[in-house]
Amino acid sequence: MSRDSYLVGLIGTGIGPSLTPALHEREADRQGLRYLYRLIDIGALGVAPEHTGELVRSARDMGYDGLNVTHPCKQQVLAHLDGLSPHAEALGAVNTVVFDGDRAIGHNTDTTGFAASFARGLPDAPLDRVVQLGAGGAGAAVAHALLALGAGRLTVLDARPERAAALVDSLDQHFGPGRAATAGLLDIAHQLADTDGLVNATPIGMAAHPGLPLPADLLHPGLWVAEIVYRPLETALVRTARALGCPTLDGAGMAAYQAADAFRLFTGREPDTARMLADIAALTSAR
Amino acid sequence: MSRDSYLVGLIGTGIGPSLTPALHEREADRQGLRYLYRLIDIGALGVAPEHTGELVRSARDMGYDGLNVTHPCKQQVLAHLDGLSPHAEALGAVNTVVFDGDRAIGHNTDTTGFAASFARGLPDAPLDRVVQLGAGGAGAAVAHALLALGAGRLTVLDARPERAAALVDSLDQHFGPGRAATAGLLDIAHQLADTDGLVNATPIGMAAHPGLPLPADLLHPGLWVAEIVYRPLETALVRTARALGCPTLDGAGMAAYQAADAFRLFTGREPDTARMLADIAALTSAR
Repeated sequence: MSRDSYLVGLIGTGIGPSLTPALHEREADRQGLRYLYRLIDIGALGVAPEHTGELVRSARDMGYDGLNVTHPCKQQVLAHLDGLSPHAEALGAVNTVVFDGDRAIGHNTDTTGFAASFARGLPDAPLDRVVQLGAGGAGAAVAHALLALGAGRLTVLDARPERAAALVDSLDQHFGPGRAATAGLLDIAHQLADTDGLVNATPIGMAAHPGLPLPADLLHPGLWVAEIVYRPLETALVRTARALGCPTLDGAGMAAYQAADAFRLFTGREPDTARMLADIAALTSAR
Repeated sequence: MSRDSYLVGLIGTGIGPSLTPALHEREADRQGLRYLYRLIDIGALGVAPEHTGELVRSARDMGYDGLNVTHPCKQQVLAHLDGLSPHAEALGAVNTVVFDGDRAIGHNTDTTGFAASFARGLPDAPLDRVVQLGAGGAGAAVAHALLALGAGRLTVLDARPERAAALVDSLDQHFGPGRAATAGLLDIAHQLADTDGLVNATPIGMAAHPGLPLPADLLHPGLWVAEIVYRPLETALVRTARALGCPTLDGAGMAAYQAADAFRLFTGREPDTARMLADIAALTSAR
């Protein structure tokens, strides 16, 4: 009788400003779907991250079709699922849960989203050598995507060296040893002098963390530069790199494609990614 | 950024065929709201009615704005609410819960829905003497509505006399003694000979319980006849009474107005009840 309807949500903390609900709902509206995207803030609910599994079960009982999952629940959710996609399994982190009958399957569209954005935005970028700043949750998804895209040598730098080392261990396990390495932050000038591209996977550049994630004079026209921060869309890094003539990729693509990939998983319908990219631009400029 | 959105649902068993989701969603669509109405079937979930309170809490945690509640949860839910409307309190049953910040308030739109339907459909019906068949959950709501509408004397008949007696006790408490009474089923001919109107609040007349709730020859042109069954819209009782020339009220109004009243409580917006009545007619004829 009624048109297809979908109830989905995002579990995490500090999610109030997320653009993901609007991205999903706008695309669903264009497709004529009844679609509601709710925020389930564990901080506001007073629920500890260890109880993520109970929230996932509640969501299923309450008629949700699926969930996005973000900090600090991406690992916590693993133990409560009935299956994992290869990307989620390799990464050990889930950002999308699909309820399929009695089963809850975990996916990771941060990885697929970054990969799709990179392939679209910098299709000819050489990948022999890549330097990545930041080895947190988003950084891990990006690093897995870069090796899956064929990066020959990925060097990961993080203010917490043990975090970078753990990421490299994970990359070694899933892609074979020798393609990923860590380097100290003091070695950054040397690394940047001899790389094809630079990826920022730190929060530096966000409105709350303004500035550049590295000294400006280390950037040079021989680099491509990719950014995962998307608020603002033009970070100091993107602006500086563009001014130098570097090919650049801003954070809109990863944000749009992770949402598009989740939308596809939730609905089985093909999203219009070009329109979702335009939505990101409109939403980030409006706020 | 996005238009107002509402997530509501219905808790109960055997609710799959309910028209209420479609009634709410159609009205919301006309008002341009993002509105999703989900069924939460405690039978399918394997949840005992005693655990209704936990489901209400889960729904609130999961971002629901409100709930309808039906059999067998309308009494069970009482202990888990922070407040009751006068109608719900008088009836001791809740069919609508509104989450308002940290508070969950119970209402009963079966009562208000029947009253509104009656006032609209049989505005000039004399109410000195009324006979009601059926003293179950819906019957209780109807009886409270009839006394609130001003019925002088209401006689309640039920195949389970203790249920009719309990309802009369409740009516005595809330409207003062002497306006309600029970009668045995064997006394039905006598009751019908001397009444202004008849209300059927039993399930007899539904597709699954076809037929008349009383012998056809007890109906006579001096009666008005009100029905709460709405599937089919024209029950054997309504058809027979119409043929006799009795003023009749079918079950569409109660179904539409209970939904309209809940919609108003959930959204704070005024529903178009005429359009909701037309929806009932379309939905019942389509199934």
